[in-house]
Amino acid sequence: MHSCQLIRSHIVRKLWRKLGLVSSAVSSREAHITNTLRAVELTSVRYPYLKRGNYSKLTDQDVAQFERLLPGEQRVLTDPSDLEGYNTDWLKICRGISQLVLKPKTTEEVSDILKICNEKKFAVNPQGGNTGLVGGSVPVFDEIILSTSLMNNIISLDALSGILTCQAGCILGNLNDHVSQHNLIMPLDLGAKGSCHIGGNLATNAGGIRLLRYGSLHGSVLGLEAVLANGEILDCMSTLRKDNTGYDLKQLFIGSEGALGIITKAAILCPQKSNTVNLAFLGLDSFNDVLDVFRDSKKHLSEILSAFEFLDSESLKVCTSNLQLASPIAQHPFYILIETSGSNGTHDEEKLTQFLETLMTVGKVKDGTVAVDDKQMQHIWGLRERVAEALLHDGYCYKYDVSLPLHDFYNLVLDMRSRVGHKATRVVGYGHVGDGNLHLNITSPSYDEEVASLIEPFVYDWIAERRGSISAEHGLGFKKRHYIYHSKSRSAVAAMKAIKHLFDPNGILNPYKTLPDD
Amino acid sequence: MHSCQLIRSHIVRKLWRKLGLVSSAVSSREAHITNTLRAVELTSVRYPYLKRGNYSKLTDQDVAQFERLLPGEQRVLTDPSDLEGYNTDWLKICRGISQLVLKPKTTEEVSDILKICNEKKFAVNPQGGNTGLVGGSVPVFDEIILSTSLMNNIISLDALSGILTCQAGCILGNLNDHVSQHNLIMPLDLGAKGSCHIGGNLATNAGGIRLLRYGSLHGSVLGLEAVLANGEILDCMSTLRKDNTGYDLKQLFIGSEGALGIITKAAILCPQKSNTVNLAFLGLDSFNDVLDVFRDSKKHLSEILSAFEFLDSESLKVCTSNLQLASPIAQHPFYILIETSGSNGTHDEEKLTQFLETLMTVGKVKDGTVAVDDKQMQHIWGLRERVAEALLHDGYCYKYDVSLPLHDFYNLVLDMRSRVGHKATRVVGYGHVGDGNLHLNITSPSYDEEVASLIEPFVYDWIAERRGSISAEHGLGFKKRHYIYHSKSRSAVAAMKAIKHLFDPNGILNPYKTLPDD
Repeated sequence: MHSCQLIRSHIVRKLWRKLGLVSSAVSSREAHITNTLRAVELTSVRYPYLKRGNYSKLTDQDVAQFERLLPGEQRVLTDPSDLEGYNTDWLKICRGISQLVLKPKTTEEVSDILKICNEKKFAVNPQGGNTGLVGGSVPVFDEIILSTSLMNNIISLDALSGILTCQAGCILGNLNDHVSQHNLIMPLDLGAKGSCHIGGNLATNAGGIRLLRYGSLHGSVLGLEAVLANGEILDCMSTLRKDNTGYDLKQLFIGSEGALGIITKAAILCPQKSNTVNLAFLGLDSFNDVLDVFRDSKKHLSEILSAFEFLDSESLKVCTSNLQLASPIAQHPFYILIETSGSNGTHDEEKLTQFLETLMTVGKVKDGTVAVDDKQMQHIWGLRERVAEALLHDGYCYKYDVSLPLHDFYNLVLDMRSRVGHKATRVVGYGHVGDGNLHLNITSPSYDEEVASLIEPFVYDWIAERRGSISAEHGLGFKKRHYIYHSKSRSAVAAMKAIKHLFDPNGILNPYKTLPDD
Repeated sequence: MHSCQLIRSHIVRKLWRKLGLVSSAVSSREAHITNTLRAVELTSVRYPYLKRGNYSKLTDQDVAQFERLLPGEQRVLTDPSDLEGYNTDWLKICRGISQLVLKPKTTEEVSDILKICNEKKFAVNPQGGNTGLVGGSVPVFDEIILSTSLMNNIISLDALSGILTCQAGCILGNLNDHVSQHNLIMPLDLGAKGSCHIGGNLATNAGGIRLLRYGSLHGSVLGLEAVLANGEILDCMSTLRKDNTGYDLKQLFIGSEGALGIITKAAILCPQKSNTVNLAFLGLDSFNDVLDVFRDSKKHLSEILSAFEFLDSESLKVCTSNLQLASPIAQHPFYILIETSGSNGTHDEEKLTQFLETLMTVGKVKDGTVAVDDKQMQHIWGLRERVAEALLHDGYCYKYDVSLPLHDFYNLVLDMRSRVGHKATRVVGYGHVGDGNLHLNITSPSYDEEVASLIEPFVYDWIAERRGSISAEHGLGFKKRHYIYHSKSRSAVAAMKAIKHLFDPNGILNPYKTLPDD
């Protein structure tokens, strides 16, 4: 597992270096990076109907006040070239014009900053690792960016109970390395683990490949500290597995995309690390067979099943053709990855082998391979995890991350494929089938208005008709907030707005995100 | 597992029959039951400082209006003898004087009832199976009781994804029987499963013995429908594992004890049922050894560990002396139950046997037995699950359900024992050590003011000093709401009150519970 994660993280870092968004990027490349970023159209220009909220504009006196609050080097950034990376999102589809990045180190500093912002009505954009995919982590206009990058202390780890406490700016991969020394793992694992902050993971209720086994952050997060818009520190930092004393306020902040408060600390329950991991890569004839094998794997692998991912043939093809990765098996309409994790290698191998033999015998699986070493595992995981990267080589990628009932799951890809026809380069489907989470991606050589209009709002209507979710794990952010009614009821959105107003009456926290305008 | 659960449920039903709170109690016993219940002092009399809120009083016209709303037999109860069971809690420590029980069948009926109550300012006490232990499920004064007992439809079960949807009044045990036919189990299991309603489980964030393996309801509940105080139906009924579209409102209702809205429906993720279950009962010399064995069991049993419970010697003694249950092993200072659940009997037995052999060899475990059949399993689980029942035979029982960091866990029992000395009949500790959840119980022949004053507020201060929780799974209800500050910060309680005011500005839902008075 360990080395397998390493390679995934490595791949991501590699991709990000290429895109120039890793902060340690060598100085010789800086000019190039800045030019690349400058090419991203400003969000406020791309969407001319957007109106800046009635927030104050920064003066030199304000900046001086923040500088007094955050003494020391590189804690108050105002140089436009320093700000480019903070203003632009990872997908390079959103770019703000913030003139100020603040880097507090403590909860109290966050509180002091927000007190000022709330009093003076400055809009604030909380930012973790800036790895979000829906434009939620960068400003739309000139919001002050509050970066958690210097809030990276691991506070404690109780190895017996598996409870970790840390500041919000800790990088997920670093936390995993840390708890790993105590035979534990983080309950979530993402492609972005090398950069994403745990505070951002919580604020966006990040999913990833471990959700199937360890559940969502709503179950794993035991305690949380957040600073409210008015600077008040909301202390819900329980480090207990069970605590039924009053409403569970921390849950509100998980998945609220920084709009209700800025998460500053968290306590997280870490599962036991498995002694042994196995990985199978299988070829199947139909999506119905994928579902049958999923049903059987829940029964036969049960407690050792740790991932069940799928790719359609187009998803694999984009890896083999655009990234020159080799497939370990012949071509099939569908592929699945089955990962097992457990405490006893002999037992797990026996369970998996028996299961695979049965599948081959009854003809549900046509071909397959089981990784025999870390290198093979890394290669197979690469085929699944590098699809997103491979798609970018086609030109422009229209990305959708949706949840659907399993019986409808793959029909969205088929319907979309017949709808856009030859106008798109390709339409692919892959993702966390074990969680009902489909990544639907459509590519074209460059952004194409006709293709876009064939996709939206069709895709959202299709999902809403089947009571799916238009955003399974990526959130709504800036890009999808106006489609919230496709997945949420009027009454629910009204209640969200009321809660937002209660916690942030001036609306200073992450404006233009998550909830639609009135 | 199946038969094991059956017996637990059977034990509970037996106990409840004895206490006369099962609705199917035979009519010949009714007079006796009523007399028993009449003996419970009215809450409003026992706590004379309590002041009835400024709510309206029912008139005959109001009752007639509700009768028109809920036509048919036994849907509007006003006969005092019919109301006794609804007015009195299971522990017989709280009794209200409600004059009206309403039994809606649909969400719309709940909505209609609350519209009237909110307009006319009637206080409402939502009630499920009335199995709560903190006086949260019965009225304090004359609140109208809204019972979910007729809202017991199972709506759907997707066997492939394991997602169940049902109305709030379904009995937990019935749901478990239903999903069990599809090779699934409910993610929670309680002693009260034969009577408790799933809506009440959600409203109180019920824990139980499966939490160690399957986590809390905050992770398992995928969707929820609730009716707000003003009658508005809040539809958050997602049936998806992942849905990051806006704030996760449903979480607020889980554990809010009916104060923010009445839960009417839920969607719940049900785990796979295990093919095989093993149970070991072990004797140990010290609590440190209990913790060492817990640590090792997480490592060696890992994914198959499904319960890790402990009893001290006094807890076992109360079962052997008060209930004449036989212990399968000789006397030891501590006992643990280790349950494993998995898909392969041979593998699980091998893991458990190897693990137990190691423990015996290194001397961490002094004696032990592994159940070889269902009967033995039932007997062993009885020793753990009937402690609460056995304690009642001592006379009066002072009950505490607390969470503590594991290194402090058992010291509370020792400190309490030396504090109350011979003034109590006994001080026992047992519970879900795997979740850091201790059940501390003190008994005396009858309620004793001196013993009570030795226990409180000492116990709450002791817990607060160690950042524990004064209520791990039972909630605050009526009995413990004024101790909330021992486990929650001022800022958190203030935020809870603001949310309560937002959702229920007239304060009609379950008043006098959960949150302290201003």
